Amino acid sequence: MKTLIKNVFILTMDEKLSKFKGNLLIIDDKIERICTEEIYGDFDKVIEAEGKVAMPGFVQPHIHLCQTLFRGLADDMELLDWLKYRIWPLEGAHDEESIYYSAKLGLSELIRGGTTSIVDMETVHHTDRAIQAIYESGIRAITGKVMMDYGSDVPESLMERKESSIKESIELLQKWHGRDGGRIEYAFTPRFVVSCSEELLLEVEKLSKHYGVKVHTHASENRGEIEFVEKDRGMRNITYLKKLGLLNENLILAHCIWLDEEEEDLIQASGTKVVHCPASNLKLASGVAKIPKLMDKGIDIGLASDGPPCSNNLDAFIEMRLSSLIQKLSLGPKAMDCSKVLYLATMGGAKVMGKEKEIGSLEEGKKADIVLLDLNKVYNAPSFRNNVESQIVFSGKTENIDTTIVNGKILMEDRKLLTLDEKEIITKANESIERIWKRAGINC
Amino acid sequence: MKTLIKNVFILTMDEKLSKFKGNLLIIDDKIERICTEEIYGDFDKVIEAEGKVAMPGFVQPHIHLCQTLFRGLADDMELLDWLKYRIWPLEGAHDEESIYYSAKLGLSELIRGGTTSIVDMETVHHTDRAIQAIYESGIRAITGKVMMDYGSDVPESLMERKESSIKESIELLQKWHGRDGGRIEYAFTPRFVVSCSEELLLEVEKLSKHYGVKVHTHASENRGEIEFVEKDRGMRNITYLKKLGLLNENLILAHCIWLDEEEEDLIQASGTKVVHCPASNLKLASGVAKIPKLMDKGIDIGLASDGPPCSNNLDAFIEMRLSSLIQKLSLGPKAMDCSKVLYLATMGGAKVMGKEKEIGSLEEGKKADIVLLDLNKVYNAPSFRNNVESQIVFSGKTENIDTTIVNGKILMEDRKLLTLDEKEIITKANESIERIWKRAGINC
Repeated sequence: MKTLIKNVFILTMDEKLSKFKGNLLIIDDKIERICTEEIYGDFDKVIEAEGKVAMPGFVQPHIHLCQTLFRGLADDMELLDWLKYRIWPLEGAHDEESIYYSAKLGLSELIRGGTTSIVDMETVHHTDRAIQAIYESGIRAITGKVMMDYGSDVPESLMERKESSIKESIELLQKWHGRDGGRIEYAFTPRFVVSCSEELLLEVEKLSKHYGVKVHTHASENRGEIEFVEKDRGMRNITYLKKLGLLNENLILAHCIWLDEEEEDLIQASGTKVVHCPASNLKLASGVAKIPKLMDKGIDIGLASDGPPCSNNLDAFIEMRLSSLIQKLSLGPKAMDCSKVLYLATMGGAKVMGKEKEIGSLEEGKKADIVLLDLNKVYNAPSFRNNVESQIVFSGKTENIDTTIVNGKILMEDRKLLTLDEKEIITKANESIERIWKRAGINC
Repeated sequence: MKTLIKNVFILTMDEKLSKFKGNLLIIDDKIERICTEEIYGDFDKVIEAEGKVAMPGFVQPHIHLCQTLFRGLADDMELLDWLKYRIWPLEGAHDEESIYYSAKLGLSELIRGGTTSIVDMETVHHTDRAIQAIYESGIRAITGKVMMDYGSDVPESLMERKESSIKESIELLQKWHGRDGGRIEYAFTPRFVVSCSEELLLEVEKLSKHYGVKVHTHASENRGEIEFVEKDRGMRNITYLKKLGLLNENLILAHCIWLDEEEEDLIQASGTKVVHCPASNLKLASGVAKIPKLMDKGIDIGLASDGPPCSNNLDAFIEMRLSSLIQKLSLGPKAMDCSKVLYLATMGGAKVMGKEKEIGSLEEGKKADIVLLDLNKVYNAPSFRNNVESQIVFSGKTENIDTTIVNGKILMEDRKLLTLDEKEIITKANESIERIWKRAGINC
């Protein structure tokens, strides 16, 4: 399959941050050529993109697709209450159909908004159906079933025995890891230290090395959480993860707001990856992660919108704008300019996924994960002095995304999704939440 | 002219916050009837709005239309530098055509995003052309030419003599105040104390009472600004405005971040109005206004996006989301829930404009300033338990706005602007900024 994208302004996000008007040839799943010259030949598809901008798709390395159905149903709560009174009962009430449509709903929003890669955390049960939805959607993903075998607040519907948690994880790994030429990867996904026994975490450490896969978890999001860990395990959160042997370049930690200097240095020295989720962190009143400082230390960081019941969106533009605005308050107006933000949203995320040689920038030989933006909108105008980075980060909206391509396959063209039926998905999502809300027995 | 909106879910924003599915009849510029029953009769236009939501249009009582052309051209700067090195030279380089298209560009964005009323601050010169654009667009506005006759940083192109500033303001007032049945009002618009002589401010005080019009200015946005005022006028900013007799219910103060307890009480006791601009306040690293505290004191507050070179947008949804998120950090997750935010964006703004009997809610006898939203989008789903306020505030986007009606006149229908030619406006905006950037002689 040969696809030519013609006459497009290309924001490569490569090391030199090259940008130029040119042409881009995709063969199968890869970028074969990017250049200013015309490309001649026979093509299966030609996209005339005069006036549009091509850039690498957004990478969002911390998403909970299983929570999309809970959007707007847990506003104005703090993390530990939010989990105990809403999210856990609702996750525990999921069935195979509701998981499938929750994932499809989130995937529709992500692809519409130009996100081409995610790291996803599912719930305890029915994860096979979520991965099926991911597979069908065409998005690139690292995903896994959540593991939780510890803690008095965990409802029966989610509480696992260590053995069955591991058995189910391995079955999913064996079924899905590496599918579609590596587009889908499995990761061991313990929820957070608070809901995992030490035995489970030690087993995850061994198995992740054995299978050569990522570990994806939450860490140091909330003050109550880190106090609990310190009391329960006798040391600070990150120090504890190090003790277990988990701190390494295959570990992805969401949030990392409440780190002390020593923990920052442990993360840096071990090559552990961090994901920043500003909308979620503000909405749950968790705090502001010290992202510019962590970037200065050389830590790999991605940007993501977490789950719709906290952030209320899966929108890379909202996260990009917030990631800049919230740092300026304490660090001054020059903090987190649009180049830094765009880096987080593309190459930063690619590094978190361990895929910086495959995605995150538009370069010959890399995977064809590309979005086309139409910035000829009144809310982006004027276009002047090539200020396209500012247009994307500070005045961009998901509405600007015109076309989304993953692995060389067009998932949205002219704002029409090609792998997902939005109307059916919204109908099924509404039916599903009705059913599981009742089953969860939430009183309010 | 009789327009019927049928089968729509109505979020009235009245005192009881009533919401129900029903019908809404507009006769000329007013809401004649809102009810759950069917309305029979002959109509000039019927809008079948099954599945949509009707709510009062957003009121944004602090906007600089003359700055829309400078979007993305002054990122990452602090207020006083931002004014001195970018905004003032650019404002001073405006010509009649550039002002006209700057306003039209901003108005297109506002109407597209469901804003039906603004309080606008223009620049020193060519204001007649901006008001012409406002007039043609159909939006409701209080506007005025900026007044500035003081300060060593003000460029020659903007520096006025007091007499000419007042003469020109009165001429504009006489031409425009009350036009189109009161849809357009004039306000005296001294920029801020820093760039206004005491004599000018005293004259504004007298004239605003004489003509019975509003005064619109900035106050206590930035720490450098309040320090300057304290040094230059010998007292704190708000105390100084009180001394001049300006502090009263016809005064609209944008920002009010750096108030002390006494100033808060002076504002409250005098009925002075406040406008909160969170995106601008974060982007310029100005600070976070204590909005929940000011609301608790009973101060009337509106929500607005200021000017595109600071906020990069004129988008009520961005401001709504931010106004909630930034308060939760210090006040906890329950602060600024979606009902409070929606109030600011509608009735709050109406009170700031002194028009709470005319606009801000959907009630019989009020002006027909109405927006229709289509919330059947993947990024708003699911719809469950009538969580429409959360859908609007936390997951809403301008893309949800389907139809915008001001004074009974449809300005956008099915996302097509009816009074503004977007393509022409974008072209002229791009030509204009090219010309005035050169004229401003900015080196960077």
